[in-house]
Amino acid sequence: MQGTKKVSDSTVERLSLYLRLLGELHESGVATVSSRELARRGGTTAAQVRKDLSVFGTFGKRGLGYAVPELKERLRGILGLSRPWRVAVVGAGKIGSALLGYADFRRQGFLVEAVFDRDPEKVGRTREGLRISPDEALEEELGARGIDIVIVAVPAESAQEVVDRAVSAGVRGVLNFAPTKLDVPPGIALKNVNMAVELEGLSFALVHEADASARDGGENGGGDGVAT
Amino acid sequence: MQGTKKVSDSTVERLSLYLRLLGELHESGVATVSSRELARRGGTTAAQVRKDLSVFGTFGKRGLGYAVPELKERLRGILGLSRPWRVAVVGAGKIGSALLGYADFRRQGFLVEAVFDRDPEKVGRTREGLRISPDEALEEELGARGIDIVIVAVPAESAQEVVDRAVSAGVRGVLNFAPTKLDVPPGIALKNVNMAVELEGLSFALVHEADASARDGGENGGGDGVAT
Repeated sequence: MQGTKKVSDSTVERLSLYLRLLGELHESGVATVSSRELARRGGTTAAQVRKDLSVFGTFGKRGLGYAVPELKERLRGILGLSRPWRVAVVGAGKIGSALLGYADFRRQGFLVEAVFDRDPEKVGRTREGLRISPDEALEEELGARGIDIVIVAVPAESAQEVVDRAVSAGVRGVLNFAPTKLDVPPGIALKNVNMAVELEGLSFALVHEADASARDGGENGGGDGVAT
Repeated sequence: MQGTKKVSDSTVERLSLYLRLLGELHESGVATVSSRELARRGGTTAAQVRKDLSVFGTFGKRGLGYAVPELKERLRGILGLSRPWRVAVVGAGKIGSALLGYADFRRQGFLVEAVFDRDPEKVGRTREGLRISPDEALEEELGARGIDIVIVAVPAESAQEVVDRAVSAGVRGVLNFAPTKLDVPPGIALKNVNMAVELEGLSFALVHEADASARDGGENGGGDGVAT
């Protein structure tokens, strides 16, 4: 990957999608795949697939397609999945508890190893095999367990404080479910998930349907947007 | 909005963000806001704010900024929020139940009016004030209640069937939480939410940190990506 090349969020999302498709092909015993076939399964174009991959070097042989296991491993490397990541969930409410049960996390190498809550009624109870730790133990446990990423599932008003404390304890990535904008220092990765924003993307598409169907699909390779 | 102009998912996400910021400003009694101030609060640039809004016509007056309540109402219109949307959740497992409790939905005009499950143990029970309906009643209830959008929170292997049935019952938008690629007919809006993809976006940022910090932030105006 070239130093100053900007890789957009939508490119990274498509790489995740290709990885999932390659996993399915690999399980079905398929050895090679063309950019066209990968595009067809992913709802994008062959040119988009080649462009997305070209940012990270040379893949495949003209006319022969991509070797499935090799491309899969290289994509895992590009996406930072060659190593496991230690994850903690802060907030054992509804969203936090739902995330604890998300089996895909572990499969992809995201190991949820701690969960925290400030409600004394919840502390000490077990969720998905994990004992809920008290909020006061946050910094110490994050540090001791070498947690890389925290999933923030606390109310909006507590979220910034949780992030500040997690960053001070050495956490490098934040997945934020609280409906608020968070500040993180340089070098800390932050992604926000807001369900209302997802629904607004849908309502936007529904009211602009006629316009949206003129899209070329390039931006929406992951299957988002109005189907055309 | 011009007929063939492509509006990217990231633009729509920033519009959602601006709407939220305008709501906060409005509540604080602020009457006008500059593109620069909106950009500062949203973690993007004034040029990006002006560009995002210009797609939808003329807003604000040079030197005077935007009238907060007016821009807020126009953004609500652009995002399709001037009318309420009727929503059903299919699948009353962990993710589905967490979504039922998401207060932001109702605030934004997404009215969750039905929930379905195929487990006879769950049918008839109440979650967040809604009685869980049996899977067999899906088409009839979606039609009778005039549901616009379904949130799919069933296992991957059942998701396509649920979507096909919902679309046949008149649903026009699908928010998919099942970790699988879904096909929808033309004119039906689809958005996929995959938690593992969000985490992969983070791990990508963590392993490409040095590269990512060279980003200009334009693509990540919503606060995603590595902070710079």
